Amino acid sequence: MKILLINSNTSQVVTDKVAAGARAVASPGTEILAVCGDFGARVIGTRSEEAIAHHSTIALAARHAEGCDAAIIAVSYDTGLRGTRELLDIPVVGMTEAALLTACMLGGRMGLITFGARGRPVYEELVASYGLTSRIAGWRTVESTAAYQPGFDDELEALLVREAISLVEREFADTVVLTGAVMAGVGARIQSRVPVPVLDGIAAGVPQAELLARARWPKPTRGSYAAPGARELVNVDAAIAKRFTP
Amino acid sequence: MKILLINSNTSQVVTDKVAAGARAVASPGTEILAVCGDFGARVIGTRSEEAIAHHSTIALAARHAEGCDAAIIAVSYDTGLRGTRELLDIPVVGMTEAALLTACMLGGRMGLITFGARGRPVYEELVASYGLTSRIAGWRTVESTAAYQPGFDDELEALLVREAISLVEREFADTVVLTGAVMAGVGARIQSRVPVPVLDGIAAGVPQAELLARARWPKPTRGSYAAPGARELVNVDAAIAKRFTP
Amino acid sequence: MKILLINSNTSQVVTDKVAAGARAVASPGTEILAVCGDFGARVIGTRSEEAIAHHSTIALAARHAEGCDAAIIAVSYDTGLRGTRELLDIPVVGMTEAALLTACMLGGRMGLITFGARGRPVYEELVASYGLTSRIAGWRTVESTAAYQPGFDDELEALLVREAISLVEREFADTVVLTGAVMAGVGARIQSRVPVPVLDGIAAGVPQAELLARARWPKPTRGSYAAPGARELVNVDAAIAKRFTP
Amino acid sequence: MKILLINSNTSQVVTDKVAAGARAVASPGTEILAVCGDFGARVIGTRSEEAIAHHSTIALAARHAEGCDAAIIAVSYDTGLRGTRELLDIPVVGMTEAALLTACMLGGRMGLITFGARGRPVYEELVASYGLTSRIAGWRTVESTAAYQPGFDDELEALLVREAISLVEREFADTVVLTGAVMAGVGARIQSRVPVPVLDGIAAGVPQAELLARARWPKPTRGSYAAPGARELVNVDAAIAKRFTP
Amino acid sequence: MKILLINSNTSQVVTDKVAAGARAVASPGTEILAVCGDFGARVIGTRSEEAIAHHSTIALAARHAEGCDAAIIAVSYDTGLRGTRELLDIPVVGMTEAALLTACMLGGRMGLITFGARGRPVYEELVASYGLTSRIAGWRTVESTAAYQPGFDDELEALLVREAISLVEREFADTVVLTGAVMAGVGARIQSRVPVPVLDGIAAGVPQAELLARARWPKPTRGSYAAPGARELVNVDAAIAKRFTP
Amino acid sequence: MKILLINSNTSQVVTDKVAAGARAVASPGTEILAVCGDFGARVIGTRSEEAIAHHSTIALAARHAEGCDAAIIAVSYDTGLRGTRELLDIPVVGMTEAALLTACMLGGRMGLITFGARGRPVYEELVASYGLTSRIAGWRTVESTAAYQPGFDDELEALLVREAISLVEREFADTVVLTGAVMAGVGARIQSRVPVPVLDGIAAGVPQAELLARARWPKPTRGSYAAPGARELVNVDAAIAKRFTP
Repeated sequence: MKILLINSNTSQVVTDKVAAGARAVASPGTEILAVCGDFGARVIGTRSEEAIAHHSTIALAARHAEGCDAAIIAVSYDTGLRGTRELLDIPVVGMTEAALLTACMLGGRMGLITFGARGRPVYEELVASYGLTSRIAGWRTVESTAAYQPGFDDELEALLVREAISLVEREFADTVVLTGAVMAGVGARIQSRVPVPVLDGIAAGVPQAELLARARWPKPTRGSYAAPGARELVNVDAAIAKRFTP
Repeated sequence: MKILLINSNTSQVVTDKVAAGARAVASPGTEILAVCGDFGARVIGTRSEEAIAHHSTIALAARHAEGCDAAIIAVSYDTGLRGTRELLDIPVVGMTEAALLTACMLGGRMGLITFGARGRPVYEELVASYGLTSRIAGWRTVESTAAYQPGFDDELEALLVREAISLVEREFADTVVLTGAVMAGVGARIQSRVPVPVLDGIAAGVPQAELLARARWPKPTRGSYAAPGARELVNVDAAIAKRFTP
Repeated sequence: MKILLINSNTSQVVTDKVAAGARAVASPGTEILAVCGDFGARVIGTRSEEAIAHHSTIALAARHAEGCDAAIIAVSYDTGLRGTRELLDIPVVGMTEAALLTACMLGGRMGLITFGARGRPVYEELVASYGLTSRIAGWRTVESTAAYQPGFDDELEALLVREAISLVEREFADTVVLTGAVMAGVGARIQSRVPVPVLDGIAAGVPQAELLARARWPKPTRGSYAAPGARELVNVDAAIAKRFTP
Repeated sequence: MKILLINSNTSQVVTDKVAAGARAVASPGTEILAVCGDFGARVIGTRSEEAIAHHSTIALAARHAEGCDAAIIAVSYDTGLRGTRELLDIPVVGMTEAALLTACMLGGRMGLITFGARGRPVYEELVASYGLTSRIAGWRTVESTAAYQPGFDDELEALLVREAISLVEREFADTVVLTGAVMAGVGARIQSRVPVPVLDGIAAGVPQAELLARARWPKPTRGSYAAPGARELVNVDAAIAKRFTP
Repeated sequence: MKILLINSNTSQVVTDKVAAGARAVASPGTEILAVCGDFGARVIGTRSEEAIAHHSTIALAARHAEGCDAAIIAVSYDTGLRGTRELLDIPVVGMTEAALLTACMLGGRMGLITFGARGRPVYEELVASYGLTSRIAGWRTVESTAAYQPGFDDELEALLVREAISLVEREFADTVVLTGAVMAGVGARIQSRVPVPVLDGIAAGVPQAELLARARWPKPTRGSYAAPGARELVNVDAAIAKRFTP
Repeated sequence: MKILLINSNTSQVVTDKVAAGARAVASPGTEILAVCGDFGARVIGTRSEEAIAHHSTIALAARHAEGCDAAIIAVSYDTGLRGTRELLDIPVVGMTEAALLTACMLGGRMGLITFGARGRPVYEELVASYGLTSRIAGWRTVESTAAYQPGFDDELEALLVREAISLVEREFADTVVLTGAVMAGVGARIQSRVPVPVLDGIAAGVPQAELLARARWPKPTRGSYAAPGARELVNVDAAIAKRFTP
């Protein structure tokens, strides 16, 4: 099986982190094809950067989906998820959506840890867009630049452990979700120090993509996720244009 | 991998249907151990029957979980899901919860088809208990006894197709979920006649159980899903009692 | 009038506490028949214990309802409420539901005090299941074993007073609800020290049961609370079986 | 016990209907003091009429509450409920709120029957203001002037029966609530023709007022329902002014 | 353009404050006609005072709307908004509703600052009545009598700045709303010290009234906001009576 | 005043229709600068087309905002609204959000008319993203290609009138909102045949943009709508890049 990991950041270091995280949890025989955006923000953080990245996600999806069995949006705002899910005829998974749905599978309410004050409302809107606000026990928002460096960071991880435990003890969270593409693999690293399951979007998203790829529910031919079919678009990447040609 | 399928109905015919459905979608190498209740309703339909079946689910889980990698509640009210999830140290999946969460993975809002007027409010409460009411595009409730016979039924399937199409066309559903343990396998049978993915609880639940079993998130040691630990219970099945002994 | 108090804990001390609380608030001429479970947890605290107690509640109801005018589920998770309400042809009251609805009658939003971290999510789910989450001003969760001893405890009551005042001052609660069967009578004991009404499930449930018994709305003959009628059940208590025989 | 029935309509015929309905369901020994507004709409139907009636409700409450044990707002928009509940030191019940809460006590979701297209949004807002929207299975809105005549009307009652049955069969309602002060007593009249409990606001409100009067939870001394205490008001009814004087 | 400012408080000082605030933000050529209640509370603070003020609002509207292009309810509970909106054939704006909707226009979630513990639940109910609870990031409630004095108060404003910053930093509010008629103009005074837009109801309400007056959407002739038409009312102000005469 | 109308469709005919609609409702002295996308779909209809258009919206905003006092997203999915609102230092209005908020100003619940089955879920998600789902009385979805032709269409308008009346009579809508950029001006055309206000996004959006431009609430310097500041982006339009340079 081959899974396309779409990282519409334009930072190879982030793409590499995510890809490494994905490979660490992929089933034997699952190949990870990680692609990095070629325009837009180095690290998508703000609302306008995300708006640009919607397009980049579509472009990366259109160029690289051929031959893949599923795709994962490897940006933690799940940027472009709905558009890509409509466009492609393979399953498309949002890394944060996957973490939220996996937390639901484990039961109870989840605590969320996000990075950066200005991203917090965006995550709250994202959770609400999935109809899952009532499944959130509480939020913690941390400031850190260490996460965007290569490798892992002990101090950051210690901070995450403290926040996770606070979510369990004070908000009665039954699971903890770490958001952020760069958190790929961090859930597993701190798990032993946290008394409830710690999920990150890649650790949740890869298995979910594998599940959907194996299950082969058909692409809808009606409704808002049917392929767009023949539509007139101008001045778009050839790979995109091709998807809209009958 | 070995998955325990807990059917707290006391009808072997229902258990057999569910087990067949599960085996049809299980990965190669996944063994399905289907167990049938030994007390309570032949077919759990009413609220009081379900109350009794909570206990039966716990008893079946306690007796048979040993050596299994995951368990599925194979009753479509997900009877006893939360209690079993707490009790066992393996992942526990609710068949209807699994279908709902899988529909979320596929995107948009789902149409639900349920059986029997008196069960309809129970399903509405179940969906609400997962916080997923806003993800429902519409409901259809059909009356049929054919579903509880061995084998499949053409007339019933034609009815389900009509209702599914109605959910797509009039309620703008992007997926359709068939509830009912006896619907195991029916989603796949009618899929070609419905323009959006058709999910049933077993077709969704088995892959989800496999996913969780492979992913090995740890059993929580705090919170409402931690194992109960040493607790004093009286006059319960020895297998149950053993689970509460340190 | 005779009210059946169904305590599916298997601790006579708890049943006695609840019964005493009920008798203290019952109208003159109301007889309280308090029955204690004969299988399951001494004190229902966890999700799996509650699953077992669903069955016990049905069994106690089936055995003892004859000749009663109403029943109260005297376990603070309202264990088995919906099933018992369906099964019996007399009104069935949940002690926590009664406290929540009574707080609604008094107006504004309520503060809730619960016992034990692992029960907190269960109470949140219970409140949500009644559709009353928006009526909650805030929560306080205390740890105490004193509540389960015979008699009352000054230190615990002082703690409850502090938490109740905090709910009024910091969460703007207009009423306070104490959950827990063992809180029967405690509301009245601390009332003078709290500036808003303090409700417990028994103090609220007994009058509600009397109200419903007097009002004599008919047992529904359609819908999800109609009696199940003739249904096939196996290996259940004779009293249960009798209820399912036409 | 003496219950004040505050009907801020200025139609004695409506007040008489409500009073008769209240007396029909009151416990032996309960006296009903029904008072009629002296300014404002004959029959409160519109939003501006209701705004005026808020004041009238307060005036009637201030004048007549002395010596009463509880009060009922006998206008089906529960006009002035919150203000009166704050002002008086006896329990105050809203007739529609009482019906909604009683339907909750009986379980499941309720169907609502309202009169007049322009009142329908007002009822929807009222239900939402109690946080009970999720407990509504469906609505039916009928046009009728017969309801406002003295006595009962066979044709209207036949219509109500049809709508109630429709709510049960098509919306899966487990109870039916008739709104409208003039529906006092109609629930009981049509009950035998409807397969689930039929509630009206007076049949629900009188027992609830009796319950609260007997239970004697204290008047809050803090929060938004504490008595206003000494406040400066000008040009108000002497009875109102007296309530704001220390 | 002429805007009627309806302040159903009976304090000329409050009316003057509100009028000054309105004139400060009105467009050139907009005339503000500020009217003060002649019965009821000096400063509407409690639920019963507000009930009386509903009537006063209707009376002031009926008397003074002639010749005006729009009206603003200049009481921060938006007292009588719905009734006045129905009654008049010009647009009617609620000052707090206007602030909430304007905050929506600016994006994200808002922090609310209210005055007085007993008013807090009333504001929460008001926000909920507009369906906007999910748009609130957090609340702060301050106690102050200074606000009701003529002129401005440095200490109070410093407190408001601190609370506003707290809402931004700890609740991630993207805007801040000051409730209270006496806050008219305070938003502008503290704006430079707060890093997000600070709205008050008058600063938001006047432009909204101007917008609606210019846009000239027609008065509805059906539904719950159509004019009541010929209706029988007794003992009401002649100006009110005239509005109900065909 | 100069308002930028951002139409990220790539159809000049649509841009012209929207611009004409905007000019028809703009205040004297307001200049409308309507810009059309240069890449992407002719008419944005599907989810993937919208994803591309997010970028186009940002590009158009970055290129043309200089010298403008406010901007309007003139695509009815409000495509790129949040990103543009963050990026620019002038107010940014979403045409559909504006219609929804204006309907709120007029009171009650609104009926929505949308075009095309596959767009319907997208609109439902959009309304939910503003937290306004509870303000919707009902939906009607029509199929029409006439709307995308130059000029107006009598048959289409007759259909819209019928649907609007149906929303008033059967769903109790107090206002009606027409979605779709090509509906600019249609509200005014059919208004006389509909008994409640009919809003379209341009008729609502232009006055709202004028209001915000005049009111001059400051650009936030904190939170999720503060300008992004110096950020590293690659391969983006020079106008975009300039916005991210300090």
